[in-house]
Amino acid sequence: MSRRHRIAVIEGDGIGREVIPAARTVLDRAASACGFTLDWRDFDWSCETWKATGRMMPEDGIARLADHDAIFLGAVGYPGVPDHISLWGLLIPIRREFDQYVNLRPVRLLPGVPCPLANKKPGDIDFWVVRENVEGEYSQIGGRMFAGTEREFVEQTAIFTRAGTDRILRYAFDLARRLGRPHVTSATKSNGIFHSMPFWDERFAAIGAEYPEIRADQYHIDILAARFVMSPERFDVVVGSNLFGDILSDLGPGVTGTIAVAPSANLNPEKKFPSMFEPVHGSAPDIFGQRIANPVGAIWAGAMMLDHLGEAEAAALVLRAIETALGDPASPRTPDLGGTAKMDDLAAAITAAV
Amino acid sequence: MSRRHRIAVIEGDGIGREVIPAARTVLDRAASACGFTLDWRDFDWSCETWKATGRMMPEDGIARLADHDAIFLGAVGYPGVPDHISLWGLLIPIRREFDQYVNLRPVRLLPGVPCPLANKKPGDIDFWVVRENVEGEYSQIGGRMFAGTEREFVEQTAIFTRAGTDRILRYAFDLARRLGRPHVTSATKSNGIFHSMPFWDERFAAIGAEYPEIRADQYHIDILAARFVMSPERFDVVVGSNLFGDILSDLGPGVTGTIAVAPSANLNPEKKFPSMFEPVHGSAPDIFGQRIANPVGAIWAGAMMLDHLGEAEAAALVLRAIETALGDPASPRTPDLGGTAKMDDLAAAITAAV
Ligand SMILES: CC(C)[C@H](C(=O)O)[C@@H](O)C(=O)O
Ligand SMILES: CC(C)[C@H](C(=O)O)[C@@H](O)C(=O)O
Repeated sequence: MSRRHRIAVIEGDGIGREVIPAARTVLDRAASACGFTLDWRDFDWSCETWKATGRMMPEDGIARLADHDAIFLGAVGYPGVPDHISLWGLLIPIRREFDQYVNLRPVRLLPGVPCPLANKKPGDIDFWVVRENVEGEYSQIGGRMFAGTEREFVEQTAIFTRAGTDRILRYAFDLARRLGRPHVTSATKSNGIFHSMPFWDERFAAIGAEYPEIRADQYHIDILAARFVMSPERFDVVVGSNLFGDILSDLGPGVTGTIAVAPSANLNPEKKFPSMFEPVHGSAPDIFGQRIANPVGAIWAGAMMLDHLGEAEAAALVLRAIETALGDPASPRTPDLGGTAKMDDLAAAITAAV
Repeated sequence: MSRRHRIAVIEGDGIGREVIPAARTVLDRAASACGFTLDWRDFDWSCETWKATGRMMPEDGIARLADHDAIFLGAVGYPGVPDHISLWGLLIPIRREFDQYVNLRPVRLLPGVPCPLANKKPGDIDFWVVRENVEGEYSQIGGRMFAGTEREFVEQTAIFTRAGTDRILRYAFDLARRLGRPHVTSATKSNGIFHSMPFWDERFAAIGAEYPEIRADQYHIDILAARFVMSPERFDVVVGSNLFGDILSDLGPGVTGTIAVAPSANLNPEKKFPSMFEPVHGSAPDIFGQRIANPVGAIWAGAMMLDHLGEAEAAALVLRAIETALGDPASPRTPDLGGTAKMDDLAAAITAAV
């Protein structure tokens, strides 16, 4: 009997509804080429759901997703629905309940993608950002006092546990070892953030000591952000807290011109729970309906999903197809890449290249 | 009797000891050209002081600085002295005790400074970052529990007050009005940071409503960082919290290639207390002693100081001299600008241009 992977699909809002179906076609092609089946199950949860029911997903949403091998997410967010509602009602609980404590994103200069930096060519920039994905600065601890008065203030508390910090740092060092690129850079701010960041540095030193063959260095987040622009060639694996990782894993794709094409994997590395794969871009309501969104972010996220499911060959096939299509000057190009093609034409070119 | 401004000088550590004297020469020249006197008073506080006495500055340090019109700081930080000690022992208390609640930094593409972005020329990028400088994420509230055990965790609490938030936002809108550039961009992260950032957005909307002629927009910090690279031409005044402002005001100079030449003003706009002016760069112990540091950051910080002291003419003179020297291909260039000149040669060229 052939291998079968059960995938929960949440297209979500806006262009999520366009790019996910496009990506499914590409992934199905790779699956049939490699002799396995992707068993897609749709979950129609979005800001529409919230408007209709007051919830982003049903009360037993997490339980319904649990029985899958992976989750494939488009994007959530819609005008009129406050961001912190749409996200704390769906994306963030999924990351937490399924203990997807690693957010992994490639930063890679691709052929055919215009790069905002001077004098860079494909291959020059190629590293990974490893972000802590379930604790740290993303916390509901805190609150507001004296609301509506001149004395009003809010408190916002970040929590860094030793267990949570150590496991993300170990993931980063293990990744560097696995990639054969023995160099891990930590994002810190221990000169300004008084309690959490000196602790982060301590744990980075302690875990780093378990990997003596790996070079470990650290920069404060302010100068690190500047270095992403000034010398992005220098990095191999960069590890940061939930907030710092969030910033760096958008800045990296910004530097390589790939915001629209970058993928994001939310991993539970132990595979105790399903992991989730999504493009970095948002729901982009301004272009929704025109079918001009770039499908590469979703397709590449799909490739990372195949890899996580143990289908390394299919994953590599999809990644090569992306590079072939983008690298071919005759391929259709969506507006973000300077062309006038529709999403469907670019997706078809990638499918053909698989 | 001629005007006289009393300046407290803290050279600090490393290249702070080189660039501050160089900058003083330039500023003295501008002062005598414009008919006023800078009365410099040295405070020899640094990490050396900490090693000798266990304090970065004497117990009555703040009181000793109080009786000045401004503070001119080089840089603090030295190998072997943990950053959070050197900074929470000097820089951060000065900012707080003197209620220097605005940190103001220009992001400007200068002639003669190599820019990492493709296809940009001087004038293309020119905006200001306004950073909240005394509250927010830089807080000593929090602590550690179960230290040294597997259950260890730290709590780090940020505090955003309405008074503190409103005054920095007002400063940003007033600055946009004063500059005749009616556009303010807010850095937020209300989709991920649950309490503080939705509050920040509320106050941004409320204060923005007081300035109906000024266009107000906002981006989450992750995408905003990417936009600094992808479309830096779009900004006029960018306002952020203590942490977000810190990141953006290093990233901006990174994007324009000017980390070594950017200045930073810590302002008490009401002039109830002295304001402090410093270059953005740190103490750079690796190049200290070679006299190859770029003095422009300190000199430009000095120009901002003159402006704050009401000496707008002298400030403009110094700024023009910087641009003249950097823009002249025959001028001496320090190694960070691709040349082989010493700091003193570049400083002399600027002095001559005043
Ligand atoms: C040295 C450090 C504490 C400081 C800060 O983060 O405020 C610096 O980065 C700055 O921007 O002035
Ligand atoms: C949408 C938002 C809550 C999310 C985050 O900050 O985690 C996004 O920026 C991401 O990086 O996946």
